[in-house]
Amino acid sequence: MDFRIIKSPSNSTKDILKRRMSGICKTELDSVDAIGLVQGKLIDMIYVADVAEKAVGVTVEDIRGTCPQHMVLLGIFGDTSSVEAAMKEIQLKMKEGK
Amino acid sequence: MDFRIIKSPSNSTKDILKRRMSGICKTELDSVDAIGLVQGKLIDMIYVADVAEKAVGVTVEDIRGTCPQHMVLLGIFGDTSSVEAAMKEIQLKMKEGK
Amino acid sequence: MDFRIIKSPSNSTKDILKRRMSGICKTELDSVDAIGLVQGKLIDMIYVADVAEKAVGVTVEDIRGTCPQHMVLLGIFGDTSSVEAAMKEIQLKMKEGK
Amino acid sequence: MDFRIIKSPSNSTKDILKRRMSGICKTELDSVDAIGLVQGKLIDMIYVADVAEKAVGVTVEDIRGTCPQHMVLLGIFGDTSSVEAAMKEIQLKMKEGK
Amino acid sequence: MDFRIIKSPSNSTKDILKRRMSGICKTELDSVDAIGLVQGKLIDMIYVADVAEKAVGVTVEDIRGTCPQHMVLLGIFGDTSSVEAAMKEIQLKMKEGK
Amino acid sequence: MDFRIIKSPSNSTKDILKRRMSGICKTELDSVDAIGLVQGKLIDMIYVADVAEKAVGVTVEDIRGTCPQHMVLLGIFGDTSSVEAAMKEIQLKMKEGK
Repeated sequence: MDFRIIKSPSNSTKDILKRRMSGICKTELDSVDAIGLVQGKLIDMIYVADVAEKAVGVTVEDIRGTCPQHMVLLGIFGDTSSVEAAMKEIQLKMKEGK
Repeated sequence: MDFRIIKSPSNSTKDILKRRMSGICKTELDSVDAIGLVQGKLIDMIYVADVAEKAVGVTVEDIRGTCPQHMVLLGIFGDTSSVEAAMKEIQLKMKEGK
Repeated sequence: MDFRIIKSPSNSTKDILKRRMSGICKTELDSVDAIGLVQGKLIDMIYVADVAEKAVGVTVEDIRGTCPQHMVLLGIFGDTSSVEAAMKEIQLKMKEGK
Repeated sequence: MDFRIIKSPSNSTKDILKRRMSGICKTELDSVDAIGLVQGKLIDMIYVADVAEKAVGVTVEDIRGTCPQHMVLLGIFGDTSSVEAAMKEIQLKMKEGK
Repeated sequence: MDFRIIKSPSNSTKDILKRRMSGICKTELDSVDAIGLVQGKLIDMIYVADVAEKAVGVTVEDIRGTCPQHMVLLGIFGDTSSVEAAMKEIQLKMKEGK
Repeated sequence: MDFRIIKSPSNSTKDILKRRMSGICKTELDSVDAIGLVQGKLIDMIYVADVAEKAVGVTVEDIRGTCPQHMVLLGIFGDTSSVEAAMKEIQLKMKEGK
């Protein structure tokens, strides 16, 4: 599983993400401070989405690659400290689950 | 083969699953207590679906990744103890089949 | 190459298979006693389909995964003893062909 | 690269092949004695198609898997001895090309 | 992750890129001096796009393969020295992130 | 990266290539003496297309597999000596680039 945090994302980066997010996007991407990205197997991404959703101050979106097989990318959006906290929580839960 | 159980799934997690389930969905996803996830080869998932269907108190759904090749994800829905029992039954049968 | 036999398949399992079988389905899936499943490379599955078709008392169907690349799943349908005999014949021929 | 020869193919096997052959099919599949199958990388299959076309008494068709990536399956159709001769010629040329 | 720089790209090369770029293309491809190409995982390409966008004098575009799974190709366009500077910046950040 | 040269290609081979080439085909495939084929990663094929375009007496086309992920096949068309010269140039540049 891969993890990345982008602080103060550029407008182009937000555009790439917007084009790959499903229509039902409830995140106000323009105003986010930081983006957490998590890439992994479909089964793990559903589990991770649930962990992130239960964290405080972030929203979660499913980001499509072009035909990404069983790999899925999740975006976690919010202010920098909330995204960092959610990412730490995910990494903790993934370790516990092993 | 990968296994995960999500207890008290968040609404966002249910939304991700709903968007990936085939139209003919007979599960009342909103009221489930727990979700069991099983990911593996198509041939094994069909076998596992049959094992889970014969278990008590759970329903089984096929969850699509975006173009997941020969890997398929099954969702097993019900109250927590039924889902846990079905997951144990699946793991037992998979060992027997080897 | 992977092999599985499902005896007295549940209705849900039959539904998953029906949704993945090509339109031209000549098998009365509702009345079968057993389902043999074989998963492998496209070239081997065409060879296996021919072996199974020449066996007695079974019918053969091509089952699609969602975008399963060069891997294909065959379903072999009939009464339990016919399916078991066809599966043994396939395993025998695959060994001879090596 | 994988090779198989099917002698006196059953009608079901021919049906599976017909459904996977491109529309512009110049082979009278119903009357063939034998089918040679070759599976490999796209670049090699184009080379093999050229070798087979220059052999005597066989015709060559491109057979699609469901989304077979860069792997392609070629069918070589004709009477048994012509198909066997073409398959030997292909195996010979592939060795020379290494 | 793979990196390449094409200096004074031929018209044919620009045509191949144009056909694979998404409709919303803000780059005047005809007048660029150099093209930087970066290929890698979706999660890394989104990170790299953000690094490149913050570099001076280049624009970034998402280039589609035909069904490239979780692998994505980024094009970085501009004059030769700007593209080279952006590519160095990306390679530096990728090392830091490890 | 894989390389092949087909001299005096048969009509069937040309037909397979034509069906897989993009609509904007500027090559008079019927009159070519030789076909050079190069298969590899998308990023390398774009680089190779640029090298081949700058060679003398050949034209370059993008050949699609059915869903070939990040692998792409290039066809290089012309008289035999020009195709051989372009293929040598490509192999030379690929070594230099390492």
